[in-house]
Amino acid sequence: MAYKLTSPATISELQDLLSRLPGPDESAAAAARARELKLTKPQGALGRLEDIAEWMSSWQGQHPPRTENIQVRVFAANHGVVKHGVSAFPPEVTAQMVANFKAGGAAVNQLAIDANAELSVVAFDLNLPSSDFTEEPSLDEERFMRAIQKGMKSVPSRASLLCIGEMGIGNTTSAAAICLGLFGGQPTDWTGRGTGIDNIALAKKTKIIETAVKTRLKKNAGGLEILRCLGGLELVAMAGAVLAARIKRIPVLLDGFVAGAAVAPLHVVQQGSLDHCMAAHVSAEPGHRRLLKKIHKQPLLDLGLRLGEASGATLAIPLLRAACACHNGMATFTEAAVSGRKTTTEEKRKR
Amino acid sequence: MAYKLTSPATISELQDLLSRLPGPDESAAAAARARELKLTKPQGALGRLEDIAEWMSSWQGQHPPRTENIQVRVFAANHGVVKHGVSAFPPEVTAQMVANFKAGGAAVNQLAIDANAELSVVAFDLNLPSSDFTEEPSLDEERFMRAIQKGMKSVPSRASLLCIGEMGIGNTTSAAAICLGLFGGQPTDWTGRGTGIDNIALAKKTKIIETAVKTRLKKNAGGLEILRCLGGLELVAMAGAVLAARIKRIPVLLDGFVAGAAVAPLHVVQQGSLDHCMAAHVSAEPGHRRLLKKIHKQPLLDLGLRLGEASGATLAIPLLRAACACHNGMATFTEAAVSGRKTTTEEKRKR
Repeated sequence: MAYKLTSPATISELQDLLSRLPGPDESAAAAARARELKLTKPQGALGRLEDIAEWMSSWQGQHPPRTENIQVRVFAANHGVVKHGVSAFPPEVTAQMVANFKAGGAAVNQLAIDANAELSVVAFDLNLPSSDFTEEPSLDEERFMRAIQKGMKSVPSRASLLCIGEMGIGNTTSAAAICLGLFGGQPTDWTGRGTGIDNIALAKKTKIIETAVKTRLKKNAGGLEILRCLGGLELVAMAGAVLAARIKRIPVLLDGFVAGAAVAPLHVVQQGSLDHCMAAHVSAEPGHRRLLKKIHKQPLLDLGLRLGEASGATLAIPLLRAACACHNGMATFTEAAVSGRKTTTEEKRKR
Repeated sequence: MAYKLTSPATISELQDLLSRLPGPDESAAAAARARELKLTKPQGALGRLEDIAEWMSSWQGQHPPRTENIQVRVFAANHGVVKHGVSAFPPEVTAQMVANFKAGGAAVNQLAIDANAELSVVAFDLNLPSSDFTEEPSLDEERFMRAIQKGMKSVPSRASLLCIGEMGIGNTTSAAAICLGLFGGQPTDWTGRGTGIDNIALAKKTKIIETAVKTRLKKNAGGLEILRCLGGLELVAMAGAVLAARIKRIPVLLDGFVAGAAVAPLHVVQQGSLDHCMAAHVSAEPGHRRLLKKIHKQPLLDLGLRLGEASGATLAIPLLRAACACHNGMATFTEAAVSGRKTTTEEKRKR
């Protein structure tokens, strides 16, 4: 396959892959637009649901769009930076929550059942966290590329939609550092309370993020280098999964702040590389709204979630399914013998 | 039953009923709050989903909240005011769309199937529209109360959730007039393009709404009187359905601008009478956002819908089901052996 990387691959191979990603299927998109005009509703009356149906078609490369076989992937890893007390929970919670996912007890389990989606967890060795990025880059090139490729491999060949999210105590610190590295601004713009730290820990977290970006990144560091130096394993794997989904023609629902920060480097390296991704929601983590503007995404939901673990992405699945159900199942004006719109006075005058 | 009206009832009986509606079940709400604290997630991390689970419990009067047997009601009627050319579609479309609902071809049919909800249409005689409110009140007292009671009867005794919406060519004109009558402001604040009228028709619609409110309403007219004078049959029935749902302990999802305007008089007459209702979405009709502020509702979705027919309410069902699924199905910290939050420095200092 033209899009295959060698194994192990180099960052420059990855950079090259990013420059030649497949685009949307214009004929599927055109078929969706043409059908939309005939359905028994005023034009545009289903708002974003109409855009979603077209978007699903164009990135699946088929019309009508389909919604069976929806996959949710939760990427899990630990972070060296947690030793500085940047999280409200101890790092062993990552492993405990992975066990909870496997036992079916977490929020995302309930949401996946409800949304009729298949959930699996892609866990890295939780005893081998990424390096503490206050001291050295989070990942060396080999580990970075292995994480990219682990993420790519986690994407099945046939799915109609992929939801990506994460679990990793400390990972909002990594996400905020990536955002500051990619987009600049103030450290406070990107730093939030994560799972619920107090003011003292928030101040410490903000300082760590500021210092790491200053000391860790070379001047004009590229997006992939920023991700390697400041990102954890599960973040890097999410970037890989998004790339694989693009190549396999699978639209993606992004979860919250951490998932968004993980894939933002792809957008920075190559505009358009996230066009097959939709932001499922905007979270309560304050940097997320800012990040979504930077990567030009309008979230589907705004319900104050801040859980991660793909919960927001999975929650949004029914919206995409509903959009496709309307598009595929509604009667046309002709089929239902419904009268069309009256010719307006303005239109009559133009004749 | 203490809440039963005579048949036919008077407006003053209805007014009295509004003053003594049942409140939320505080013990069910407390049980929901207590469980929420034990679930395997940081407190508050599911945002509005947590509030929804408590709200469902408190208005169903039971804990855990349930989500089986969800009902959707689409109320349909015609409007005398359409003869002034206030809609982009001819009035026979109301009957054609009712036939489309019954044949399963409309958007709401696809959404109801997807959401596993039962849909039925409550149609008034479409050959007997409400009166043209530019000439006389839309409904006399008897017809008004029959419409209220038809709406009340349409609500089943046992359901976990009710979605209400409407179909009626011309009914955004009625909705805008009600809003202007209830809340004042400028006629342009409340008047929108409905199914898609042009600028000329929009100017005419705005003028009709302004004149109707000025000429039709006595000074200090109460909410129910405003609804009677300016509301159509399907709007009045929606107000009745919302009342019956309150009495039968069924939470309600309100659809768009017309549904909101239909029930707003209940809020104006008696604060709190819509506490068992949630706004499913904010529509593209510009008056809707303003209306939701007036009735103190924060919408769940903001996707630019403007179709009516309960489509927005039905689209939001999965969010409520997801909230209850998380609340009811998640493991507790103890069950999953997940470590809790660390004691913070601030908390330690306070000891």
